[in-house]
Amino acid sequence: MSGNKAVAYKGPGKVEIIEIDYPTFELKDGPGVNPANVGRKVPHGVILKTVATNICGSDQHMVRGRTTAPTDLVLGHEITGEVVEVGPDVEFIKVGDICSVPFNISCGRCRNCKERKTGICLNVNPDRPGSAYGYVDMGGWVGGQAEYVLVPYADWNLLKFPDRDQALEKIMDLTMLSDIFPTGFHGAVSAGVGVGSTVYIAGAGPVGLAAATSAHLLGAAVVIVGDMNADRLAAARAFGCETIDLTKGDPGAQIEQLLGVPEVDCAVDAVGFEAKGHGSDSGHEAPATVLNSLMDITAAGGSLGIPGLYVTGDPGGIDAAAQKGSLSLSLGTGWAKSLAFTTGQCPVMKYNRGLMMAILHDKVHIAKNVNAKAIPLTDAPRGYAEFDAGAATKYVLNPNGYLN
Amino acid sequence: MSGNKAVAYKGPGKVEIIEIDYPTFELKDGPGVNPANVGRKVPHGVILKTVATNICGSDQHMVRGRTTAPTDLVLGHEITGEVVEVGPDVEFIKVGDICSVPFNISCGRCRNCKERKTGICLNVNPDRPGSAYGYVDMGGWVGGQAEYVLVPYADWNLLKFPDRDQALEKIMDLTMLSDIFPTGFHGAVSAGVGVGSTVYIAGAGPVGLAAATSAHLLGAAVVIVGDMNADRLAAARAFGCETIDLTKGDPGAQIEQLLGVPEVDCAVDAVGFEAKGHGSDSGHEAPATVLNSLMDITAAGGSLGIPGLYVTGDPGGIDAAAQKGSLSLSLGTGWAKSLAFTTGQCPVMKYNRGLMMAILHDKVHIAKNVNAKAIPLTDAPRGYAEFDAGAATKYVLNPNGYLN
Amino acid sequence: MSGNKAVAYKGPGKVEIIEIDYPTFELKDGPGVNPANVGRKVPHGVILKTVATNICGSDQHMVRGRTTAPTDLVLGHEITGEVVEVGPDVEFIKVGDICSVPFNISCGRCRNCKERKTGICLNVNPDRPGSAYGYVDMGGWVGGQAEYVLVPYADWNLLKFPDRDQALEKIMDLTMLSDIFPTGFHGAVSAGVGVGSTVYIAGAGPVGLAAATSAHLLGAAVVIVGDMNADRLAAARAFGCETIDLTKGDPGAQIEQLLGVPEVDCAVDAVGFEAKGHGSDSGHEAPATVLNSLMDITAAGGSLGIPGLYVTGDPGGIDAAAQKGSLSLSLGTGWAKSLAFTTGQCPVMKYNRGLMMAILHDKVHIAKNVNAKAIPLTDAPRGYAEFDAGAATKYVLNPNGYLN
Amino acid sequence: MSGNKAVAYKGPGKVEIIEIDYPTFELKDGPGVNPANVGRKVPHGVILKTVATNICGSDQHMVRGRTTAPTDLVLGHEITGEVVEVGPDVEFIKVGDICSVPFNISCGRCRNCKERKTGICLNVNPDRPGSAYGYVDMGGWVGGQAEYVLVPYADWNLLKFPDRDQALEKIMDLTMLSDIFPTGFHGAVSAGVGVGSTVYIAGAGPVGLAAATSAHLLGAAVVIVGDMNADRLAAARAFGCETIDLTKGDPGAQIEQLLGVPEVDCAVDAVGFEAKGHGSDSGHEAPATVLNSLMDITAAGGSLGIPGLYVTGDPGGIDAAAQKGSLSLSLGTGWAKSLAFTTGQCPVMKYNRGLMMAILHDKVHIAKNVNAKAIPLTDAPRGYAEFDAGAATKYVLNPNGYLN
Repeated sequence: MSGNKAVAYKGPGKVEIIEIDYPTFELKDGPGVNPANVGRKVPHGVILKTVATNICGSDQHMVRGRTTAPTDLVLGHEITGEVVEVGPDVEFIKVGDICSVPFNISCGRCRNCKERKTGICLNVNPDRPGSAYGYVDMGGWVGGQAEYVLVPYADWNLLKFPDRDQALEKIMDLTMLSDIFPTGFHGAVSAGVGVGSTVYIAGAGPVGLAAATSAHLLGAAVVIVGDMNADRLAAARAFGCETIDLTKGDPGAQIEQLLGVPEVDCAVDAVGFEAKGHGSDSGHEAPATVLNSLMDITAAGGSLGIPGLYVTGDPGGIDAAAQKGSLSLSLGTGWAKSLAFTTGQCPVMKYNRGLMMAILHDKVHIAKNVNAKAIPLTDAPRGYAEFDAGAATKYVLNPNGYLN
Repeated sequence: MSGNKAVAYKGPGKVEIIEIDYPTFELKDGPGVNPANVGRKVPHGVILKTVATNICGSDQHMVRGRTTAPTDLVLGHEITGEVVEVGPDVEFIKVGDICSVPFNISCGRCRNCKERKTGICLNVNPDRPGSAYGYVDMGGWVGGQAEYVLVPYADWNLLKFPDRDQALEKIMDLTMLSDIFPTGFHGAVSAGVGVGSTVYIAGAGPVGLAAATSAHLLGAAVVIVGDMNADRLAAARAFGCETIDLTKGDPGAQIEQLLGVPEVDCAVDAVGFEAKGHGSDSGHEAPATVLNSLMDITAAGGSLGIPGLYVTGDPGGIDAAAQKGSLSLSLGTGWAKSLAFTTGQCPVMKYNRGLMMAILHDKVHIAKNVNAKAIPLTDAPRGYAEFDAGAATKYVLNPNGYLN
Repeated sequence: MSGNKAVAYKGPGKVEIIEIDYPTFELKDGPGVNPANVGRKVPHGVILKTVATNICGSDQHMVRGRTTAPTDLVLGHEITGEVVEVGPDVEFIKVGDICSVPFNISCGRCRNCKERKTGICLNVNPDRPGSAYGYVDMGGWVGGQAEYVLVPYADWNLLKFPDRDQALEKIMDLTMLSDIFPTGFHGAVSAGVGVGSTVYIAGAGPVGLAAATSAHLLGAAVVIVGDMNADRLAAARAFGCETIDLTKGDPGAQIEQLLGVPEVDCAVDAVGFEAKGHGSDSGHEAPATVLNSLMDITAAGGSLGIPGLYVTGDPGGIDAAAQKGSLSLSLGTGWAKSLAFTTGQCPVMKYNRGLMMAILHDKVHIAKNVNAKAIPLTDAPRGYAEFDAGAATKYVLNPNGYLN
Repeated sequence: MSGNKAVAYKGPGKVEIIEIDYPTFELKDGPGVNPANVGRKVPHGVILKTVATNICGSDQHMVRGRTTAPTDLVLGHEITGEVVEVGPDVEFIKVGDICSVPFNISCGRCRNCKERKTGICLNVNPDRPGSAYGYVDMGGWVGGQAEYVLVPYADWNLLKFPDRDQALEKIMDLTMLSDIFPTGFHGAVSAGVGVGSTVYIAGAGPVGLAAATSAHLLGAAVVIVGDMNADRLAAARAFGCETIDLTKGDPGAQIEQLLGVPEVDCAVDAVGFEAKGHGSDSGHEAPATVLNSLMDITAAGGSLGIPGLYVTGDPGGIDAAAQKGSLSLSLGTGWAKSLAFTTGQCPVMKYNRGLMMAILHDKVHIAKNVNAKAIPLTDAPRGYAEFDAGAATKYVLNPNGYLN
């Protein structure tokens, strides 16, 4: 039996490589495991040897100490792997399959799963609907920034790549199917992006760039990305987006220069609750900034896709309201314009197969667009630090040497 | 040429019957008319002799002095009438037709109208998308609580009833097609109500009761209505709704008693910005109460339909944020549950024909459900006062004696 | 171990009660079992003690000898039962649960199941997508007109009723959830039925009456049912439908008398390939009659829902074309009117939960509308014969005495 | 007042340039004008000076003598023009605007127009829903292969290009917005094409190539086009499509070579009723060939978009059934696979604005993909002849020298 190196949260600002148990078909007690999940049998699971596992912006919320994540929580919910062992109840997934793991764990048996709402599965997290690997308050499923990881309900959850060689060849693109590509795509879809749309995307981090990539793939006429980080904006320009530097102020005026009107058809919030003010306020956290700005610059009748995370409790929030997840929103403005809003985790399984097909047939190059970069598992601490410092890079960990 | 008696706003708390000009095919200057609309030619319009015109909850916002409505503004956007004169460009609507007028005026020529978004027409209100008769900041189209009223773009806007006698027989139901029935229906539809849904509707005023009626018509399994007004709750029970008395506290616990769970599939906000606190707070205005409570009691994956009005400026708001239409919303809660939100005016033309068919073929009895009551035009001041005092009644003005 | 009485096909026109094996968690060889399914392990299955199991019109195609069904095939795909044994991989369904079984067997693991297309599951029938219990060429899953039946992939397939006593009280309604109620509902939904629609339904057998019930539940303004059987038409009138006697000719003229126009918004084919001519042709089989007549009487822009079965091989068809499932269709007429057509098995799981809620909360009375009648399992031969002779009755078999 | 040269049908196989009246705001009697339309006033119309007007495959049906089109019928329903005169009721369109004309004429006032079903407008063709310029049995609106043409209901029908210079620069692309680009797009959309789909398009004529272009724009993973014309297949390959030579037999086997399975997710019929057999049958007309072949090669659960024209009467049809528009269709196959079918004229106004935006922002190059070629109006006879002979070219007439 192999050992199992993993990336763990070690307190605010700190991640380390630790040694954890090799997975078995049972969810054992450990840091962050919900008591009601301890000892849960997982005969429907498989054990994956990790092929690629990415560092995500939502991991950073934990690492920055903005959550109640316990020390030694194993991180990582963006996982692609090779099946090395299958549980006794697994029927269709086989040893040797290379598969993408949707970051939201779902059972494939509850009402919500049957309705394709796999982001809010009712059976995997004793606290509330919805779960994920390696995430605080999500049930305690062990994270995948590790050499090996357990995936429950494998026949339901896993997306098998049709051909092993082809998969390994395009693995830097395919690894984005576990989270950010579908998440950005969901943002674009729920913002109503279609052929000919004008689109504004707040945030040029990996999810923002994935949303911009998705908007192009959906046929948008103009895709505009706003951020305060010059490198990230350059990344957006590199694949045909227009960009807006938010250190220069609110996006409306700059949109008007691009489009002739200060409004777009569709808007995506790829920032979430750690938003900062625009223009002269740009150093300060201001959690409602993005949503209020999107209501301003979305044309009447438009929609806002909100994949950016908003939380129910943020101990590090700027004031009492922010600490319990309340925001001061200009709903009057939104109502006068008949806007619609879609929030929440992306139900990855709704989109990952189609996006895989688009990758395999060279319709889209998501790895290039988000500037994916493979690093050894042991370099995870550096990856976290650089990403937090604003590197225009999507870090992909390579625990088992599959990535060249 | 006849005279033209009309109901006018005369300052906070005051409406009076005044004499105004008989309409012509031009929008003349007057109280509340946008300068850019003064002198606008309306050859595509018709003049209606009013058959029925209802007092609406959104009129009350003006009458209570919560807006910048000028004195002598003629009120009324819920209009049904008989065509007595047609403009030179009108081709299909004929003198003698009995028609329902959608409260939102639209041109039938702009991008939004072509996309069925008639609540945000681009050509009728110089200030912003969207317009209505007799309403502050909506372009200045003269209200229809009057003997005669001008309807522009008549071939597009008007819904002609197929048979005059049948129409007059069911007129107390059909008069609800101009606003509250489609508005309540839009609330239910945008909340995702379908066959078998459990639904909660905040507010048992006429729009809330129309939303409840709509939820039943759409096949909901259980329709629950919450309010603090016992008479209005009794009205909801009279057509098969469950009810919740909000003076006893937040709705969650009472929903649990009814359904076994403290959550519903779908929720409708039929209250808007003049919301009051629940339970021990129930005397006090608390504009975010309804939306925050709906986020609490809507199951993960659900939707909120928000036909209740939220404004961009409310001089009488309880604090500076409320005065500019900002609300402190628990978006973290909504996001964790993947909720969706639809706001804005109902695009009446999307629904009024189908609802008319349902009325004409006795599938639905909206007049009975909202307790419609015809009163003379000259009794409008009394109607406004009683409605404002909480009467469980929908007042229908009868300016020309069509209603028995 | 109990014995297991079951209803079997014994050759054209003949069904008999036979004794078969009590089910185990394996699909054993037997009449009609696909060789590739023989020996298939079913640890994910449960064994149901049958509470109710209905005779279906599509069973009649086999019994009439219109298919290649082998002798001793056990019939029955409309099943409701109590769980008496659970396989080792079953996690959420428990012994004692009373559950409805969707007639289409699906795995909950393939692409189509994940997309809610459970009528064309890829993993249960080695011949082609889609399967059902007790049906020729559907993989060989043993039919449920028996005392006990095996249900595979039970956590996915079964719809558990929330309360046992309530379930048994409404069991004659709930038993329709396994097939005809969702099937009729799917017909209505795919015909575009909504609030205010005018609807024509071809066929007043149980599926036609279920479609009519569904159209009412969806808010249709007028529901018209056509058939040649006076008793079945009387059943339709009993719950508020208009009816058309097709022995008097094509439906257009009679629709015009009802609606003032010879057209409806939406049409449902609840007849299928054994259609007979209208009017003076009404004795003769004419497989394209229904579809051609629906294209005539559906208004431009309308849709046709086609739950009625059309087959790829019909050895008893009237001519060579019919024998291979080809029909002479007036597609020119359909194209000129921009009609849309939806065919195929109903994906029951998309609808059964909502319809269950509507039944449990007394929104709909499907058993009464289809004239459901419980008979002993041993009376199945009589039930088949009477139903085939045109009885306006839905026969529900009662193998274990649950039905009073 | 100018003269007005136009392209007219002169009998089977013959078109000629004739001189017709300069249009006025009235529909005068003439070849093919419906008596009920003679003398119809058109104050809501504009007169366009034609900028570009294309020869369409559906014109060929008339020119080949396959319809009852009368001699001297002026052809042309694909029109882009500059407004030179506006009728008295026109409010928003101005002289000098360059506009695209949807080929389906619609009123913007009837139920169907209000529901965006502009392909079946109820007020423009006395014979039946739906109309077009220059087409037999479509009401008699004069064709636009002319120097000047009258467009009714101009504020509703016309799509104005935002900038004159930009429009003229991209005019060879923009001229495809009047018909084939939206028509192909509608075929793709109604076939369910989305991101990652595999798509088969029957026919590599201009509509087929437009459907293929649309499938790419919608994010399809693989777009396969089948035809018997080598030049047209080469055109498809030039923009990234896979191709199938139907002279070699049915498409299934060739699809399997490309995809590994003999099926696609989505299929488009861009051929219609003049279809020919495949393989060894490829010389012979066989009107049901395309639809039957698409049912074979579309995966279970897929959809067929059918923009290819099917008619109600075809005097030149191969047999009595074909002459009245009846086809022998393998509906059993379609039903077993739960296929859906969408037929009819494309409602151009649903799509043209978005496609215009995609063209103006360089997302798509439709002119290049369909090999558009401008020729003088007087060369129309040659254009018709070459197109009929199978030239892989979309001919664009240039009546007023706008095209360089």
